[in-house]
Amino acid sequence: MVVRLKKWKVGLYIGRFQPVHKGHIHAIKYALGKVEELIIGIGSAQSSHDLENPFTAGERFTMLRLGLDENNVDRNVYSIIPIPDTKVHSLWVAQVVAYTPHFEVVFTNDPLSSELFLEAGYNVEGIPYLNREIYNATYVREKILSGENWEDLVPKNVVEFIKQIRGVKRIRDLAKTDNPYKKPKK
Amino acid sequence: MVVRLKKWKVGLYIGRFQPVHKGHIHAIKYALGKVEELIIGIGSAQSSHDLENPFTAGERFTMLRLGLDENNVDRNVYSIIPIPDTKVHSLWVAQVVAYTPHFEVVFTNDPLSSELFLEAGYNVEGIPYLNREIYNATYVREKILSGENWEDLVPKNVVEFIKQIRGVKRIRDLAKTDNPYKKPKK
Amino acid sequence: MVVRLKKWKVGLYIGRFQPVHKGHIHAIKYALGKVEELIIGIGSAQSSHDLENPFTAGERFTMLRLGLDENNVDRNVYSIIPIPDTKVHSLWVAQVVAYTPHFEVVFTNDPLSSELFLEAGYNVEGIPYLNREIYNATYVREKILSGENWEDLVPKNVVEFIKQIRGVKRIRDLAKTDNPYKKPKK
Amino acid sequence: MVVRLKKWKVGLYIGRFQPVHKGHIHAIKYALGKVEELIIGIGSAQSSHDLENPFTAGERFTMLRLGLDENNVDRNVYSIIPIPDTKVHSLWVAQVVAYTPHFEVVFTNDPLSSELFLEAGYNVEGIPYLNREIYNATYVREKILSGENWEDLVPKNVVEFIKQIRGVKRIRDLAKTDNPYKKPKK
Amino acid sequence: MVVRLKKWKVGLYIGRFQPVHKGHIHAIKYALGKVEELIIGIGSAQSSHDLENPFTAGERFTMLRLGLDENNVDRNVYSIIPIPDTKVHSLWVAQVVAYTPHFEVVFTNDPLSSELFLEAGYNVEGIPYLNREIYNATYVREKILSGENWEDLVPKNVVEFIKQIRGVKRIRDLAKTDNPYKKPKK
Amino acid sequence: MVVRLKKWKVGLYIGRFQPVHKGHIHAIKYALGKVEELIIGIGSAQSSHDLENPFTAGERFTMLRLGLDENNVDRNVYSIIPIPDTKVHSLWVAQVVAYTPHFEVVFTNDPLSSELFLEAGYNVEGIPYLNREIYNATYVREKILSGENWEDLVPKNVVEFIKQIRGVKRIRDLAKTDNPYKKPKK
Repeated sequence: MVVRLKKWKVGLYIGRFQPVHKGHIHAIKYALGKVEELIIGIGSAQSSHDLENPFTAGERFTMLRLGLDENNVDRNVYSIIPIPDTKVHSLWVAQVVAYTPHFEVVFTNDPLSSELFLEAGYNVEGIPYLNREIYNATYVREKILSGENWEDLVPKNVVEFIKQIRGVKRIRDLAKTDNPYKKPKK
Repeated sequence: MVVRLKKWKVGLYIGRFQPVHKGHIHAIKYALGKVEELIIGIGSAQSSHDLENPFTAGERFTMLRLGLDENNVDRNVYSIIPIPDTKVHSLWVAQVVAYTPHFEVVFTNDPLSSELFLEAGYNVEGIPYLNREIYNATYVREKILSGENWEDLVPKNVVEFIKQIRGVKRIRDLAKTDNPYKKPKK
Repeated sequence: MVVRLKKWKVGLYIGRFQPVHKGHIHAIKYALGKVEELIIGIGSAQSSHDLENPFTAGERFTMLRLGLDENNVDRNVYSIIPIPDTKVHSLWVAQVVAYTPHFEVVFTNDPLSSELFLEAGYNVEGIPYLNREIYNATYVREKILSGENWEDLVPKNVVEFIKQIRGVKRIRDLAKTDNPYKKPKK
Repeated sequence: MVVRLKKWKVGLYIGRFQPVHKGHIHAIKYALGKVEELIIGIGSAQSSHDLENPFTAGERFTMLRLGLDENNVDRNVYSIIPIPDTKVHSLWVAQVVAYTPHFEVVFTNDPLSSELFLEAGYNVEGIPYLNREIYNATYVREKILSGENWEDLVPKNVVEFIKQIRGVKRIRDLAKTDNPYKKPKK
Repeated sequence: MVVRLKKWKVGLYIGRFQPVHKGHIHAIKYALGKVEELIIGIGSAQSSHDLENPFTAGERFTMLRLGLDENNVDRNVYSIIPIPDTKVHSLWVAQVVAYTPHFEVVFTNDPLSSELFLEAGYNVEGIPYLNREIYNATYVREKILSGENWEDLVPKNVVEFIKQIRGVKRIRDLAKTDNPYKKPKK
Repeated sequence: MVVRLKKWKVGLYIGRFQPVHKGHIHAIKYALGKVEELIIGIGSAQSSHDLENPFTAGERFTMLRLGLDENNVDRNVYSIIPIPDTKVHSLWVAQVVAYTPHFEVVFTNDPLSSELFLEAGYNVEGIPYLNREIYNATYVREKILSGENWEDLVPKNVVEFIKQIRGVKRIRDLAKTDNPYKKPKK
């Protein structure tokens, strides 16, 4: 006989989603197995148009919607909230709390977030990775840059959306430099 | 014979929602009659704990969810996005655009927002008010302060939520001063 | 026999120029009688689209050019530099110094600027007013709002420019409110 | 037989100290009766040179030292720490915590601070006033402005210091305006 | 028969000018062949006293004046405007627009600026380089650091000015470190 | 016969104290031989929870108190003041001056601080190092990370305090990454 443990009521999962890939969908589904409702925080919401953060908060919001719809995740069980950085790490937890509905558990594998939420007295849980070597936004951006296959790492509708907003061109442009004393970024 | 005009695909409606009242619900329903999908922006997202902005962005997010659920507005047709101020008005439209999915029309009665979006080349439409004299957040906060009936102006579940987070006490505390040379705010 | 005293080499004159009026032109001409070269600082450069600061730094730059050209002030003897506020008054003088070429004297009638530059060890000189009651930006904005004659207070080309950018409409829109509990600003 | 209750180990007392007056000294002595060590936070540390905040954090630090030395408060039992504002109220408690050594109790009569620290789970205690009608920084600044007796409200060495840094002139200059459409501030 | 195409009325050219070199003068002359009037924006205006940005906006303003005067560029056909960064790239175009008079074309070789202005719907044109390998501010700063010939790369009066404000010493001091675990910057 | 030169009245010494080590105590004692009173500024006060700045301003304040008490430095002859960065270097000296009591001499070996205070007309003096190779905060943090002996480099009570606030764990957590494409920081 299986005893089903009561779920947490609300959980928080924060990522930068630059861009959304299948590992994110996997993590969100995992977290949704542990909570009744999930707040998905878009971190560094103010950043865009640099190589580590090519997409705006609004574009990432759209990607999450597309990726989760495509994977049949019910819109009623999650909320997506962009959260701008504080720069000052000691204010970060207070910032997140101010931007989000009440939550009881934080899902994160990021050591800094984990440290900050633990110091503030929160419950923090890790998330098992789905092949972290490839379902990884750094890796996806590098494939986009190098022109290798990246489309298989990303939900199909997100691939379409990135192409539609000329995201591939944007990332490649951001990597260029007109200065011979700076090497192309990657 | 009625000819149904094609709707705008996506609209934007921004408010501060301090707190959510029935006039907001009315406006959102009105806008949802004009668009297929509505982005509800929570303006001045960074503000809370002052008399004009007592509630955090996260609390206002919750109020919107509660008020819209109570009024049977389908979660699939709207998104709620907190948007922090830029202080610098000339950057405001760019800020909104960066935080939100693509939209085609802006619903607002606020003269400054209207002016800024019009100057930036956007379609702007007004919203017919539902008795603006009483369905008005300034009025609601004043009733909360004075202890008069405010509960009828606000969706029932939002009333419950405000009480649960001790919002009435918060507003009254924020109005106090310990300085005899400053008069209590209102 | 008149002995001509040696002029200061470079002077600084800061205003907000919301909008440029004939009193500004008068003051700049006066200062140019005392220095070989004048730096005209556009204060609160970041502000625009509010009732006290309706125009952007760029629009004010254009107004200064137009008003000074119209009054035959040689472009070779002055420079116009927008300077954003620091918010923190104790940093203001350092901010101005960082944004401008070297100067030796500050022309101002503003008590705060005067106090800050004097505390920092600068030479500060006042400027005789040209009928301060009417050549006054607050007064000009009020006339624009009320629809009374303001055009005579402002250089002719600046009047044209304000009309061309729909500045009268902007000021009137900024004064409106859609909230019956706030009275129209003025 | 009197049972002496164990004191709190460390307390926090925050003021703006614009300027330090005898009511502040009284409050600090009161708090020092309740704790072994007191952190005195200088609030709005970034502000100076405006009528409500004429003095810099450094000047207020000096005033506190002078006033407390004059009243024989042992330098070993308190620390003075300037704390800049966050603007965003929801981050304020986290900001204070980051700038100060660990404390266990907050002494304040300010409704906003009290609300914020209580919401964050801190112990908050009020402080009995020493004639709040006159030992009040707003009142002291008004007396300085009007030229009436203010010296009796402020520790003798603080009076000397304010005069030495030309603080009376500064406050009066800050109250002036060169604009006939603005009335002198007070 | 040569058909002279109508020029753009106003163009924008943004650089950091750390420091002004002959390549900048060349680019400005090129742009002035395409427009009737040129706005020269000093980018990252807030930065100074670091190795990539040694000079203040005011110092760079002076260098531009000196270099352009020396090359007989008429002061009547260009304006120089310092523009502080927004940090947030998505606000950058709106910031530039707010700080400058109206322009119709942007001259830039910088991939990020180009991308941002193109996304905002602006006309963007490249500028042919004058030997980019040596007329390059990174290269000039390196020569200043290493003590090799840099004076030939920079207009003569700018060389004089840099020496006069002890700019060579400043750059070398900024490259030093007193920490044996950090290597001197270059 | 030794002639004792009159001391400076007040000096300023700024460090980041990440963490406090014996070299800092040595430097403070050295400076206290040159002045009657020393202001100890905690630089980058806003930073914490990153590898170069693991500790909050408040924690560093406590470390300084503990380290100086342990070394019998009289609390009456120094003050500790946290000072947040300005980001903009040209405002740094004005920021320091606003946060601190009046001082007459600056003790620093840091080339940037030295440059900025010298340009602003201050007296600047270097401090002889106590074995800079090991009494060095970068080195101490590396030893903490690698698990080698760091306790001998730091005052005994500071070692205790760091352990008590779980500072060793914090530094090691901050060095971790969950991204296989980023190497662990050090």
